[in-house]
Amino acid sequence: MARIYLDHNATAPLRREARAAMVAAMDVVGNPSSVHAEGRAAKALMERARGQLAEALGAQAADIVFVSGSTEAAALALAGRGLHGAAVEHDAVRAWVVEDLAVDGAGRVRLEDAPASTLQLANSETGIVQDLPEGLAVSDWTQGFGKLPVAFDWSGIDMVFVSAHKIGGPKGIGALVLRRGLDVEARIRGGGQEMGRRSGTENLIGIAGFGAAAEAAAQDLASGVWDRVDKLRNILEKTLEPRAKGTIFVGKDQTRLPNTSLMVTPGWKGETQVMQMDLAGFAVSAGSACSSGKVKASGVLRAMGLDEEAAASALRVSLGPETTEAEVMAFAEAWLAARDRWAAKRR
Amino acid sequence: MARIYLDHNATAPLRREARAAMVAAMDVVGNPSSVHAEGRAAKALMERARGQLAEALGAQAADIVFVSGSTEAAALALAGRGLHGAAVEHDAVRAWVVEDLAVDGAGRVRLEDAPASTLQLANSETGIVQDLPEGLAVSDWTQGFGKLPVAFDWSGIDMVFVSAHKIGGPKGIGALVLRRGLDVEARIRGGGQEMGRRSGTENLIGIAGFGAAAEAAAQDLASGVWDRVDKLRNILEKTLEPRAKGTIFVGKDQTRLPNTSLMVTPGWKGETQVMQMDLAGFAVSAGSACSSGKVKASGVLRAMGLDEEAAASALRVSLGPETTEAEVMAFAEAWLAARDRWAAKRR
Repeated sequence: MARIYLDHNATAPLRREARAAMVAAMDVVGNPSSVHAEGRAAKALMERARGQLAEALGAQAADIVFVSGSTEAAALALAGRGLHGAAVEHDAVRAWVVEDLAVDGAGRVRLEDAPASTLQLANSETGIVQDLPEGLAVSDWTQGFGKLPVAFDWSGIDMVFVSAHKIGGPKGIGALVLRRGLDVEARIRGGGQEMGRRSGTENLIGIAGFGAAAEAAAQDLASGVWDRVDKLRNILEKTLEPRAKGTIFVGKDQTRLPNTSLMVTPGWKGETQVMQMDLAGFAVSAGSACSSGKVKASGVLRAMGLDEEAAASALRVSLGPETTEAEVMAFAEAWLAARDRWAAKRR
Repeated sequence: MARIYLDHNATAPLRREARAAMVAAMDVVGNPSSVHAEGRAAKALMERARGQLAEALGAQAADIVFVSGSTEAAALALAGRGLHGAAVEHDAVRAWVVEDLAVDGAGRVRLEDAPASTLQLANSETGIVQDLPEGLAVSDWTQGFGKLPVAFDWSGIDMVFVSAHKIGGPKGIGALVLRRGLDVEARIRGGGQEMGRRSGTENLIGIAGFGAAAEAAAQDLASGVWDRVDKLRNILEKTLEPRAKGTIFVGKDQTRLPNTSLMVTPGWKGETQVMQMDLAGFAVSAGSACSSGKVKASGVLRAMGLDEEAAASALRVSLGPETTEAEVMAFAEAWLAARDRWAAKRR
């Protein structure tokens, strides 16, 4: 049986547009810093991708700094600044902030001083979307970009960052976007690439894929692809809810990403659920996974007031633009069957 | 007429082995941090590439940290340590060192305290190779790796770093190699990837290409490809020398990379030479090029004692494993013709 991939928030499959752009970029020989024809062709390819990304972000190309991903961008935007943040932020953000912003039971962060704070657009585990006030210092758009309409130039936010692999581009490339007139202190120095903000020979093939993915993602968004996904996600939850008493669908009544469902079944470990679903042919994720592959209680759910046991009992299902109703229903049946087995053993 | 690319030290064309590995990696959907089958497949691909790179470097896979390139690796290895370095180092190294090591007229660096110093394996402009003593703190192997036999485990050096795109892998991926027992303070933090030394979702497609390129480069080296290139480089210099009085072939009597020739023609600006050769169909480089595309006097040549005029009058020709004698001879004739025109105007 073919595998069913429902872990798009962890990473999305490469879009065909991104693949084509990357394969084409493989024939571009030059270094974008070289002045000869081969170098200029590489530079032109990079600037074309920067324009595609700018268009999708509602930003200006000159304000985009290519980096290796959101994790690097977070360090560039946040390190040494002591901004306020909440425990629902991604670890790449939490590494650099004063974690003193309150989170309510609905997953909403209460900002006190926007110009001294960072706040994510959408949570990767719950999909819960935050209201981003004008004047906000930094916002992590990694999980919301591509799924929600955004426009950096109209947001009034100083800096945002995104990663290609969440929108169907390749892993290992991302961007920091800076409001005109702002700057950051380079953390990777040398050749002076990216207007001195981020040195190092550019990931040309990755950048080409990023640009193409951004353009395709913007087209998907405009054509209503995520409305269809939202309906599928709701079908999934409506199918499960009456047959899974005691399972909590986190953020169900909140504004959420259209593709994300986080289900907490207290006492049934997320780790176990992931493994059982994996064996059944489905790729899904526990609420929180660190890189070692070990799953611990979700810091996001703890911050929302769930207890340790509940926070360790989450399963995240995240759909993609090509997910079908048949796939969702196959998952629902498999998960319900596993849940019945778990409940039977528990008695 | 087909273009002739003689700027391999700036960046090398993608090897077919790297291309094939990257295209194959595009079908690997998972995030290497995910525990399901798709995640494990991604992780396995990454670890296979790490093994290929380790083999080519004479190192252990567990000691390799994937980063976005040598520039990032230099920051990771050098920032905050105040190591001694020389002015012939790459700007990515110079950004972090106390630049007080003496360089002689032959381009050789005099080390005083190896455990407190950094020293490159080979210079990107001149190709001059340094003797690396045991106990050296850090060495930039970017330009030497793949062209010279190296074995990290036998070198007695604490840390070295390399970039894929100099050996026919993609741009935007590189590695720091650490002697067992050593560690570095992570500069990019969050998910804890690369054993906590470098967080962020890994550049899987780039890593796959890096591994394949390293394996292919090691095979090339073992099969004597660079001996052939060395002969070609010497044919080039022997062709030019008698017909270019006053042109200096820098490092000619030193141990050099087999593919590099740096020619200084005092008064004939490197920038001008690059543009004239570009128009004639050849991609070559001035001694030093910053990312803005502007060419300034080479800091490397100034450190070797050349005056400002001479240091701004360098042209670097760097050959690749597939460069042919016909290409080299075509370049020689085109350059000599341009040189004659320059000399005629000058009179």
